[in-house]
Amino acid sequence: MRVSRRSMLAGTAAGVLAPAVGLAGPAEAAGLTRRITIYAEALPNGRYGYGLEPGKATVPGPLLEIYEGDTLEIELVNTTDQRLSIHPHGVNYDTASDGAPLNASFNNPRETRTYTWRTRARAEASGGFWMPGSAGYWHYHDHAMGTDHGTAGLARGLYGGLIVRKRGDLLPSKQYTVVFNEMMINHEMAPNTPILEARLGERVEWVCIGYGSLPHTFHLHGHRWADTRTGMLSSATDNAQTVDNKNLDPGSSFGFQILAGDGVGPGVWMYHCHVQTHSDGGMVGLFLVRNPDGSLPDGAQDAIDRFKQHDHSGHEMPEARTHA
Amino acid sequence: MRVSRRSMLAGTAAGVLAPAVGLAGPAEAAGLTRRITIYAEALPNGRYGYGLEPGKATVPGPLLEIYEGDTLEIELVNTTDQRLSIHPHGVNYDTASDGAPLNASFNNPRETRTYTWRTRARAEASGGFWMPGSAGYWHYHDHAMGTDHGTAGLARGLYGGLIVRKRGDLLPSKQYTVVFNEMMINHEMAPNTPILEARLGERVEWVCIGYGSLPHTFHLHGHRWADTRTGMLSSATDNAQTVDNKNLDPGSSFGFQILAGDGVGPGVWMYHCHVQTHSDGGMVGLFLVRNPDGSLPDGAQDAIDRFKQHDHSGHEMPEARTHA
Amino acid sequence: MRVSRRSMLAGTAAGVLAPAVGLAGPAEAAGLTRRITIYAEALPNGRYGYGLEPGKATVPGPLLEIYEGDTLEIELVNTTDQRLSIHPHGVNYDTASDGAPLNASFNNPRETRTYTWRTRARAEASGGFWMPGSAGYWHYHDHAMGTDHGTAGLARGLYGGLIVRKRGDLLPSKQYTVVFNEMMINHEMAPNTPILEARLGERVEWVCIGYGSLPHTFHLHGHRWADTRTGMLSSATDNAQTVDNKNLDPGSSFGFQILAGDGVGPGVWMYHCHVQTHSDGGMVGLFLVRNPDGSLPDGAQDAIDRFKQHDHSGHEMPEARTHA
Repeated sequence: MRVSRRSMLAGTAAGVLAPAVGLAGPAEAAGLTRRITIYAEALPNGRYGYGLEPGKATVPGPLLEIYEGDTLEIELVNTTDQRLSIHPHGVNYDTASDGAPLNASFNNPRETRTYTWRTRARAEASGGFWMPGSAGYWHYHDHAMGTDHGTAGLARGLYGGLIVRKRGDLLPSKQYTVVFNEMMINHEMAPNTPILEARLGERVEWVCIGYGSLPHTFHLHGHRWADTRTGMLSSATDNAQTVDNKNLDPGSSFGFQILAGDGVGPGVWMYHCHVQTHSDGGMVGLFLVRNPDGSLPDGAQDAIDRFKQHDHSGHEMPEARTHA
Repeated sequence: MRVSRRSMLAGTAAGVLAPAVGLAGPAEAAGLTRRITIYAEALPNGRYGYGLEPGKATVPGPLLEIYEGDTLEIELVNTTDQRLSIHPHGVNYDTASDGAPLNASFNNPRETRTYTWRTRARAEASGGFWMPGSAGYWHYHDHAMGTDHGTAGLARGLYGGLIVRKRGDLLPSKQYTVVFNEMMINHEMAPNTPILEARLGERVEWVCIGYGSLPHTFHLHGHRWADTRTGMLSSATDNAQTVDNKNLDPGSSFGFQILAGDGVGPGVWMYHCHVQTHSDGGMVGLFLVRNPDGSLPDGAQDAIDRFKQHDHSGHEMPEARTHA
Repeated sequence: MRVSRRSMLAGTAAGVLAPAVGLAGPAEAAGLTRRITIYAEALPNGRYGYGLEPGKATVPGPLLEIYEGDTLEIELVNTTDQRLSIHPHGVNYDTASDGAPLNASFNNPRETRTYTWRTRARAEASGGFWMPGSAGYWHYHDHAMGTDHGTAGLARGLYGGLIVRKRGDLLPSKQYTVVFNEMMINHEMAPNTPILEARLGERVEWVCIGYGSLPHTFHLHGHRWADTRTGMLSSATDNAQTVDNKNLDPGSSFGFQILAGDGVGPGVWMYHCHVQTHSDGGMVGLFLVRNPDGSLPDGAQDAIDRFKQHDHSGHEMPEARTHA
């Protein structure tokens, strides 16, 4: 089990970067089955979270990671007094692991239940077509708390990222889970939103997830990615679009790998929802690209200080009001 | 003319799966012109629908299907006392067949008018680029009732799916038209939304369409597809994203082919809008994957019963409210 | 410097088609640096605009255009009494050119400041993957007026299109910038929205941009494009989707090239937001495809007259109301 590096700036909320569960290396054979235990727990302030150890639940939950062809068996321990479940996107599961009350697939209060997620590679169909494999940047979430669609579970923090890789995929140095949910990022508003860190040139991986009932668009300053499975192009002639702003509406997810500060240098770069009322309201966080030696680049501390002092309550434009 | 199989569970609203008009087989030469008559009719409860025979209008209307290169001539018989039209997405038409009042292209009350839709294959441009062909999962809708944009026609049921295939495309065994329009699926809310059926392993085709004024995201449980023209990959190295949740905002459409229950087994799988207030409000239907012999899999009847008894009025989470 | 042709119908608002800044031809070597001056100015009715000459600011601002590998140095002259900036999407810039108050990158009232935008071609990574280049249909906008996200600047007109081409890309004959922002197109509502013109068969390029806080979908009548970087397919087997309706949510942009009236003939074609309340509310403009000799096709003047007389206040459907 590979656990990704945590990178947290002093003052940033805990749980920004949950430990990734790397379940198989590229050289390993497909078809492995790994077993983990996830604890669903009540947290302060009415939140709930998933964690890999008792008392360690976070919002978002741990970033889970498997390779195409492998199976993940999750023993979900419900330590709470609420009905809840775990429902994945992107992977195969039979109805008993659906995580939906429709299929009586949930944990009653204090109940433990096993959910099995399977994955597979693409398979040739007829006519030159291929049925797609499981590889992608996915997510998992409660589907049973509050309503039959887990609306209370989502509103209280029961969600996390899920990566299914193809063998041969590039592996990042750092990973970030960024969840846009109602007017929050990872259940926080600025300036309590995550400050995600890397050193200049590090290969970092973003897993972006949308929940709730509002439309969102994710924008990252100073960086861009291909609108493909990996965020990269698959050949010298790949005609995919390059984007730096992408819809992150409820239930959707995408991910991409970039080199921190590549072509733009170290510094503090905003990521935010581009819906103006949302960014003004606090849906903004920071991507801090440090110097190669780990030191803060010029101006970075000033930018962080500005961010931390900002109340995001908006400020009017008095002179201009006389024009309108 | 090929008419697709209807598959309807007892108790499901009629009109779930309208007959497809298969207008040309893959072996036929391109350039054919087919002529059909569509009847626009008033239905009970203030609805309007399109149908291929008098008195047979449905919501959504018939799923129309042609091959790239072919032409469809539609004699639209307006049996109502309203101004209305038929406006297609994805195909070629001159201004007289625009279906828009801007071009004086509509049927007055009780009027009959012919609309011509043409299609074509991709064409080579310069520099290695190709102008795209007509193939895709499209739709048609009224553009003249109530407002110059057909807002009343859309709100009352005047819409349907349109498939333009490439010769050589795989043909499905079953086809489903799923329309997200305001807070409804195919003009119904759960538990009156469609229960779509197939047997395990059948190749089924989904045509998903969005209308109205609200953003939506379509999610299907237990299945996923490639975000390409067909829902499949075009090669072993195609880098397209696999998705199981996709925006279905007004005017947009997409489609995909999957094998029912592939890798997950038979059972009852939800499809729903992933906007939480929408799914909680009733934007959810069922995909019933039967056993290969057509019998109901274990647990399926229980799931259908739960769905049918559900009032989707939401239920609070009393204990948790004390945390917040 | 290449300046694209303006095409404006009498009666259409000025500033529909801003002059494009074509900064390098396909045969030129990469790595050039071009310098331009942009003037940010107050306009009547509380608007603000960017322009390439003093007193010539437009909404949207000038369509800027560079080739991958080249650099654009912009001297931004702030002639106003407001804090403002210029923030680009899609290109490389260091934090001093971010255009965001977070990085103290903005112009104080009456201040001049230089912003540098760099671009580059795709670069090979490991494993057969490529890091994407800068080519795409992008945009630039204020990020400092009113709020730290430039919400007042966007609401008042400080935005424009930006194209980064690959050498070898096809060049269009005409270019259109279309901005969906709140309930407006290019800061106007019908019938004051742009009437965009071309002759039958001309290669025209659309640059579509979304701002504000509302979700939008862009639909063009009678034409469609591939959902790729260019709007075209990259090969005979490219499996990309063809679309004629695409999300244009805040911060997003896309572009495409089509041949005016190709396969559908000359005439007046609507482009509009497909969100019904938005199109009914006036988010609609016209694409006028003239005959090859430049004359108006039959019926075009009638269509334009209908458009100009339309008040877009909506009209009820009295008979149908008795059904509901």
